[in-house]
Amino acid sequence: MAHKIAVLPGDGIGPEITEQAVRVLGALGLDLELHTEPVGGAAYDVHGHPLPASTLNLAKESAAILFGAVGDWKYDSLARELRPEQAILGLRKALGLFANLRPAILYPQLANASSLKPEVVSGLDILIVRELTGDIYFGQPRGVREVADGPFKGERQGFDTMHYAESEVRRIAHVAFQAAQKRSKKLCSVDKANVLETSQFWRDTVIEVAREYPDVALSHMYVDNAAMQLVRAPKEFDVVVTGNLFGDILSDEAAMLTGSIGMLPSASLNASNQGLYEPSHGSAPDIAGKNIANPLATILSAAMLLRYSLNEAGRADKIEEAVQAVLQQGLRTADIFEPGTTRVSTSEMGDAVLKALK
Amino acid sequence: MAHKIAVLPGDGIGPEITEQAVRVLGALGLDLELHTEPVGGAAYDVHGHPLPASTLNLAKESAAILFGAVGDWKYDSLARELRPEQAILGLRKALGLFANLRPAILYPQLANASSLKPEVVSGLDILIVRELTGDIYFGQPRGVREVADGPFKGERQGFDTMHYAESEVRRIAHVAFQAAQKRSKKLCSVDKANVLETSQFWRDTVIEVAREYPDVALSHMYVDNAAMQLVRAPKEFDVVVTGNLFGDILSDEAAMLTGSIGMLPSASLNASNQGLYEPSHGSAPDIAGKNIANPLATILSAAMLLRYSLNEAGRADKIEEAVQAVLQQGLRTADIFEPGTTRVSTSEMGDAVLKALK
Ligand SMILES: CC(C)[C@H](C(=O)O)[C@@H](O)C(=O)O
Ligand SMILES: CC(C)[C@H](C(=O)O)[C@@H](O)C(=O)O
Repeated sequence: MAHKIAVLPGDGIGPEITEQAVRVLGALGLDLELHTEPVGGAAYDVHGHPLPASTLNLAKESAAILFGAVGDWKYDSLARELRPEQAILGLRKALGLFANLRPAILYPQLANASSLKPEVVSGLDILIVRELTGDIYFGQPRGVREVADGPFKGERQGFDTMHYAESEVRRIAHVAFQAAQKRSKKLCSVDKANVLETSQFWRDTVIEVAREYPDVALSHMYVDNAAMQLVRAPKEFDVVVTGNLFGDILSDEAAMLTGSIGMLPSASLNASNQGLYEPSHGSAPDIAGKNIANPLATILSAAMLLRYSLNEAGRADKIEEAVQAVLQQGLRTADIFEPGTTRVSTSEMGDAVLKALK
Repeated sequence: MAHKIAVLPGDGIGPEITEQAVRVLGALGLDLELHTEPVGGAAYDVHGHPLPASTLNLAKESAAILFGAVGDWKYDSLARELRPEQAILGLRKALGLFANLRPAILYPQLANASSLKPEVVSGLDILIVRELTGDIYFGQPRGVREVADGPFKGERQGFDTMHYAESEVRRIAHVAFQAAQKRSKKLCSVDKANVLETSQFWRDTVIEVAREYPDVALSHMYVDNAAMQLVRAPKEFDVVVTGNLFGDILSDEAAMLTGSIGMLPSASLNASNQGLYEPSHGSAPDIAGKNIANPLATILSAAMLLRYSLNEAGRADKIEEAVQAVLQQGLRTADIFEPGTTRVSTSEMGDAVLKALK
């Protein structure tokens, strides 16, 4: 039976990078049924909404979603609920994609790209497991209200609610412990338990789940300290698990340690391994349509798609090896170019990966 | 009239680093009245509370507080409200210390200490202005409750409230704009307005305040992007203003970019320029009592104390010049030692600063 895949290219460089990943998926001898719909600003332009019903329905019916990127300055003046990013929040919530896997890997061939000293980052391989459907991202109540009492009584106040229920913490903890079991058996849970009740509850719950994983060494770190230690000695981290808000910040920080965010894929999974796969970088509208963007993060996202949603680890490995091979051949898009390597376009990079796959 | 100063040495290395800063304050020919009280774990040991009334009252009656550091593993099993860090939260709230100034400066003599490449960080000089008495740190309601409805109905849930009232945002924005006016006239406000109502309200309010500062160029950045850009190109930042939670994370990240957090002071001010001054680093209980800790962050905090609470900019400059001088002489405590420099103890570093002051 064919696997149904939703292809949502989105805005900016989204279409051109997604195109290369689609070519790669098509070259593996799999029975895939690919359907494309607009998302983000591109969907707003056509349907007046960043996540129209047609796109959402396709996503729901698919085994996996290959997502490009969303966002463009030209949508900045829209009301918040119509802005491109709302599509990604809407997809996460509607599909229950609670487990975000964000690897931060520094490929040896790209060690120079980092703003950190090579000895600090060479061989970096962190997996950040970010909870993606809870926390202050979706907590109610939220809005703007009048302050009821205290020193600011009568003033307007913006407010949000952070919260985590027990099973929300448990299920992401299980994902993280199981990921740690497959790696170095070290898990660091990041919170702000010295200040936040949500974090203390998170920490207590993670400690309970840890009893089921006696082979994994669990540690805890405050988020401010984690932001520091990622800069000081990132290689001391292996698997990190954290909430939605802290994960947003730390996964981007960790990605940037590599200096090559154009290389980093991500997966967002639900309980039935349905998943959304997207590069960690954004839509880069300034270089859109120029055929110079790096398609490798999206191609590696397609590899994650095969691994997690289609249970095709062998083919996922093949894609990852092909990406290593093109790096080894010295091929570089503009974002990772350095003297002595060969600069290629988006489509040439796609060609090279396809060739390496053969 | 003598200026009353509260000296709160605290735990770990707190006493020994504070001692050196007190010596420096005493050598400037000022009429100061210094009073010492325990805080944090040290206060818990004596009074059963990390911020006893005697300490809080002294702080309230003083023009400024010189604070060492709090925390030690031996208090980890205490209930949260008795843990050392609560003293610092309590002081901030009781004195209304809403404006936290956190410089991240990389001294040219210490450029090698950073984990970042020298060209990325040399000459780094960022000022993070963190709001310190609002946000999710103190928002009510908070706690653990039963979920009322939805998919997690009946489960236990940890929760917190993030909020900012209009005048809370306005007053910290004014501090930041005025700081920017004295520096490069660039201010970057960091929020998560694409997700949080509090952030959108923050952003709208900062934009309103900006009208009063037409000479300052205001920009906005999402917190996840800020965490990335601090790693990629930290020198593109000058003054950054942000809320309490994001400020906690970003100010620590920025501090660690320098690789020499033992050098970084901080000030926390209220509306009448009463202030608490403390090093940005922690209490380091593992090296406490060994006379090896770096006292320079605390000595530089004393300089900030003179500048902001005592209006003694000239003497503050003198201290900062003395610190530069000892670095130039090649003197280094263990944390910033490198081959070719002279390793000195905590008290020897204090001696050297005193000598340089003359
Ligand atoms: C676009 C935005 C809502 C989103 C988030 O904050 O989750 C993005 O930063 C991400 O990390 O995928
Ligand atoms: C100790 C802790 C409560 C505190 C904070 O989160 O504000 C600390 O991290 C700081 O930044 O001063």
